[in-house]
Amino acid sequence: MSIDDGGNMRFEEALNTVGKLDNGIMGKVQKRLDSLTKPLGSLGRLEDMVIQLAGITGEMFPKIDKKAIVIMCADNGVTDEGVSSCPKSVTASVTRNFMKGITGINVLSAQAGADIFVVDIGVDDDISSSGILNKKIRKGTGNIAIGPAMTRSEAIKAMETGIELIGELKNKGYNLLGTGEMGVGNTTTSSAVSVVLTKNDPEIMAGRGAGLTTTGLENKINVIKKAIEVNKPDYSDPVDVLSKLGGFDIAGLAGCFLGAAAYRLPILIDGFISAAAALVAVKIKPEVKNYIFPSHGSAEPGNTKLMEELNMEPYLNLGMRLGEGTGAAVAFHLFDAALVAYNRMGTFDDADIEQYEHLE
Amino acid sequence: MSIDDGGNMRFEEALNTVGKLDNGIMGKVQKRLDSLTKPLGSLGRLEDMVIQLAGITGEMFPKIDKKAIVIMCADNGVTDEGVSSCPKSVTASVTRNFMKGITGINVLSAQAGADIFVVDIGVDDDISSSGILNKKIRKGTGNIAIGPAMTRSEAIKAMETGIELIGELKNKGYNLLGTGEMGVGNTTTSSAVSVVLTKNDPEIMAGRGAGLTTTGLENKINVIKKAIEVNKPDYSDPVDVLSKLGGFDIAGLAGCFLGAAAYRLPILIDGFISAAAALVAVKIKPEVKNYIFPSHGSAEPGNTKLMEELNMEPYLNLGMRLGEGTGAAVAFHLFDAALVAYNRMGTFDDADIEQYEHLE
Repeated sequence: MSIDDGGNMRFEEALNTVGKLDNGIMGKVQKRLDSLTKPLGSLGRLEDMVIQLAGITGEMFPKIDKKAIVIMCADNGVTDEGVSSCPKSVTASVTRNFMKGITGINVLSAQAGADIFVVDIGVDDDISSSGILNKKIRKGTGNIAIGPAMTRSEAIKAMETGIELIGELKNKGYNLLGTGEMGVGNTTTSSAVSVVLTKNDPEIMAGRGAGLTTTGLENKINVIKKAIEVNKPDYSDPVDVLSKLGGFDIAGLAGCFLGAAAYRLPILIDGFISAAAALVAVKIKPEVKNYIFPSHGSAEPGNTKLMEELNMEPYLNLGMRLGEGTGAAVAFHLFDAALVAYNRMGTFDDADIEQYEHLE
Repeated sequence: MSIDDGGNMRFEEALNTVGKLDNGIMGKVQKRLDSLTKPLGSLGRLEDMVIQLAGITGEMFPKIDKKAIVIMCADNGVTDEGVSSCPKSVTASVTRNFMKGITGINVLSAQAGADIFVVDIGVDDDISSSGILNKKIRKGTGNIAIGPAMTRSEAIKAMETGIELIGELKNKGYNLLGTGEMGVGNTTTSSAVSVVLTKNDPEIMAGRGAGLTTTGLENKINVIKKAIEVNKPDYSDPVDVLSKLGGFDIAGLAGCFLGAAAYRLPILIDGFISAAAALVAVKIKPEVKNYIFPSHGSAEPGNTKLMEELNMEPYLNLGMRLGEGTGAAVAFHLFDAALVAYNRMGTFDDADIEQYEHLE
């Protein structure tokens, strides 16, 4: 099927569909940016955003008027190892609370003018709410400390869930996407995946998540080491790493990044879990990176290493570590600001001054 | 006169009026933040913003519904030394363009819902525009490479101009302020002031401004060295440093920071020039710092050192170096986001989950 039908691209098909950015348009946008009444390049990364948005969309004047945040919710069997400061039931509770409108992402996405799409991709409870998309692969993953999180085909299925959802959002006219998640234990799975994919030590990639004690953090590090020892993931095969050490939330989000690239939509990383998912997607298909933007620098320490591996720098330095897509929602504003400057500033012709000189 | 009359506080009076933050309210705000349905502290610096806003205003639920950016415009005699990549006349042209609505700050402040107040505090031209506040001290400062920029009493007068304006904004109901400037040559004066106040070398504190060549940068560094040698500023007397090496724009903005503290209003630093002005204000009266927020990390290299000296970390990492208050305008959104989260998120009582554990 063609991508224009939307909503049903398979994994391999999505990978094969990912194309290059439109260099022709990007050059034209650069020229217009240089004609605006300001020192050349002085809007910094706001200019880079506009250029990248144009390259993704193929539009000289890209529009952002319909934003969405996808929130993948899932449980992780590794919570059996006591790796989280809060009980497993919080995953289901918070997932339901997204529908009550009282969570951080509810109020921040509303402020950003963004809709949220909450996906139950593996919560270990029956979530029956009309607002939540039921895409449950299974009620939580296996405990990675004793075996694989999921099968390879489950990992592919979870990624296809993300790809499919992005296709639907494309059809609905969304033109800026953010990624969020909820899943007790998912900083442990994200750390485990990141340890293997970035070749950093667990001591560097693991943090306190929602609020672990020092003893809790030591346990978490040991669990990650054990998970890698037990599962022996093949670091050159990101799908193997994802299925053995990841979670349904990470897999679903990796699918969102792949899907965004296939459907040519800009998509933002949120925090640590989302960055781990982005790295999985980029390791599967490096060209996907061109469709991804960072947002904030999560307080979770491994995030810095993930950003380095992705060769990205967060725009926001807010020390947030809430997840849910909250950092992406706050960063949406920067894209609005970039386009406002690009669309509405006067040119040197309007300004009665000569173009400022260029940096050497 | 009492500060409640607004608009006419003198320099010494303003300094004596600067009070402490309201610790009682700050404690209550912290408690409310901890009751919201999220891991403790997970909104990071957004939480710190709310606490500081409450401490400044004395309000348990501080409001931000009227924002302003003050733009101080002035010429600098040091442009005679060829320290800028653009001609001196650009100061007057851009100052007039603020009234045409085509500059970066026009479109970004409009997006942020902020009004701009453009002040001619020393442009070397007759600016006759009804929209521009005529507070001209003199038509440009002296060339700091051969003598002082201004007299001490001119520096005080320029600071009082800023203090007075903030008083007027307080009376008009503004409750979040940003600082901006326009003045060809003002990265040179800001660097010179910063070299003395932070005791860093000119090689570290000087950058390319609007777009200097490498030779131009070397010249700029030599001019700064010469200015310090000729003027022999007393580093322990910030007003002496300001008057000998600064500019009317820097002095006016330093007055804005002092005024914001005296009138208990939150105020944002923009870029390098604005940060130099903030440092002058804080060196004059250290308690002023409690009323100041950073915004973005300017691409001008000395900015990092100024932030270190102020013990602040920019919220935004956008590589901007446009000035005019543009970085502050973009950062205004973060304060809106912080208050939206604080005001509208549910509490653990609403959320049907127990409070997440605290970090050790």
